[in-house]
Amino acid sequence: MSDSLTSQELSIVFSDIPKFAAISGAILEQYFKNPGLDSKYLDVKFKDSKKSDPVTLADTEAQESLVKAIHDKYPNHDVVGEEDKNNDGNISDLVWVIDPLDGTRNFLNGFPLYASSIGLLFQGEPVAGALYIPWPNSKGHLIISAVKGMGVTINDQKYINDISSEFNSSGIITLPGSFNKRFKFSKEFKGHSGELRMGGSIAYELSLLVLGISQYAVISSSHIWDVAGAIPILFESGYAIKQISRSGHRYTWESFDSFVNLANNPKYEDYRTRIDPILVSPIDQIEYLSKNIEIKNSSFATLMKSIVK
Amino acid sequence: MSDSLTSQELSIVFSDIPKFAAISGAILEQYFKNPGLDSKYLDVKFKDSKKSDPVTLADTEAQESLVKAIHDKYPNHDVVGEEDKNNDGNISDLVWVIDPLDGTRNFLNGFPLYASSIGLLFQGEPVAGALYIPWPNSKGHLIISAVKGMGVTINDQKYINDISSEFNSSGIITLPGSFNKRFKFSKEFKGHSGELRMGGSIAYELSLLVLGISQYAVISSSHIWDVAGAIPILFESGYAIKQISRSGHRYTWESFDSFVNLANNPKYEDYRTRIDPILVSPIDQIEYLSKNIEIKNSSFATLMKSIVK
Repeated sequence: MSDSLTSQELSIVFSDIPKFAAISGAILEQYFKNPGLDSKYLDVKFKDSKKSDPVTLADTEAQESLVKAIHDKYPNHDVVGEEDKNNDGNISDLVWVIDPLDGTRNFLNGFPLYASSIGLLFQGEPVAGALYIPWPNSKGHLIISAVKGMGVTINDQKYINDISSEFNSSGIITLPGSFNKRFKFSKEFKGHSGELRMGGSIAYELSLLVLGISQYAVISSSHIWDVAGAIPILFESGYAIKQISRSGHRYTWESFDSFVNLANNPKYEDYRTRIDPILVSPIDQIEYLSKNIEIKNSSFATLMKSIVK
Repeated sequence: MSDSLTSQELSIVFSDIPKFAAISGAILEQYFKNPGLDSKYLDVKFKDSKKSDPVTLADTEAQESLVKAIHDKYPNHDVVGEEDKNNDGNISDLVWVIDPLDGTRNFLNGFPLYASSIGLLFQGEPVAGALYIPWPNSKGHLIISAVKGMGVTINDQKYINDISSEFNSSGIITLPGSFNKRFKFSKEFKGHSGELRMGGSIAYELSLLVLGISQYAVISSSHIWDVAGAIPILFESGYAIKQISRSGHRYTWESFDSFVNLANNPKYEDYRTRIDPILVSPIDQIEYLSKNIEIKNSSFATLMKSIVK
């Protein structure tokens, strides 16, 4: 495997990746509850006895179709996702990290804030991504995709995001429910931190950034598949990412670049671990926001416990 | 004016009220940002210097069309809404309380969680309502309506909601951003209070109840127009409402029945005041929830200040 992708290889991905999102998205759409109309019967199973993380037929069917489509086209690439348990051995330089249904609880309850997320990593670095999200337009959805250096596409059209360089305290932001356990706003920022929305789907909330609807997002501890589809699109849209990093006894916001450490000769399982919390905002706002969104160092025992679990 | 509405009068309203919601909804749809497609130019004005409550052309145009449609059909009824400043004199027994655009901030930013809300009150009691909300179906929206005793209609079809009689702690709920200032969960309920979503539009969040998507909602201090469209639909769907009430020095949840006190010979301005916080849930769950969602009596100076302002 070479040390970089050729522009020809990236062009092929550019044309394929929105098609992949369309495949899994179409399956989700079929199963999604449509008030006043029929939809496929939702056979709900539960992953654990607490019934806190439901998996639906839609999820399974979307996963299988997506993996097949990727393998048919790219037989030498690996695919990693929440639902698979393939192996824990060696992994290629090119890894598709997929979450066929992000926001399962919303989907299950009929709340149209969910996503299908597909990311392509090259040696751990996000290089291409696609997101399907339901949307009240004539198609019923948006398919947002991007390849590194090739811009962003929405529903087959080139998309230019007009993101603001200045933070607007009356604009929309998204935070996780656990925000206050792990973070606090600086004294100056408190009360001016933006209008909070909580959507319940990481990939959907990251789409709101791409679309210029919300201004910043904090994602608490997540898996690579929750964010791998969105990150290449965010980078192509003018967003920057900081991630919590430990230095000595203190935790700080540091620049995010890659999911896996190549020096460690990554294995399949390295793509399935939880990742530390991230902050996403327009490039021009990231320093301001990371200064004003403070990490509670005192509660790090709790934080790290939840990350490694 | 008689002491009750005839079934013939209600039948006419039953057929008219979803049409009214379609009129204002169609205008909002035209102006709503559609990523990748053109939409009418959004000429944004701001109500105050803090720019915290933006009004759009869409809002104004939806308001004017809605008022005209109602007055054309019901010339003797009064219409009350956020945007009008008609008069503060006497008011008829039949009052249409409208919010052409609820969730203005979402709308302005292109987040498709907003609503157009239309309620009809008879002597202060909600008797009919309609809601337009954007939705990812073939029409791009849902129009939900109900008339007292005549059931619920969604997009021209009779709708039977299958709401649960038991609270599910892993289901979805909605709370206002200010929840913790005014309320707290009981010790037993904390950690089992449901999965929080924050949508930023009262009428949209109340629609999620009607659709069986969320389980309960707390609405902090609001205006009648924020809830007047949803309440008749909620009552027809099997939901109950409790409202904060003061008895001596204590505040408690009491049954909600009417917006205005007829004994006081209500005036136009009585329909424009803020109302106390409400809790909405399925009838079978309201006692359980109101017991477990405790009102912080200590902070009532603050609460009442925000209500009367």
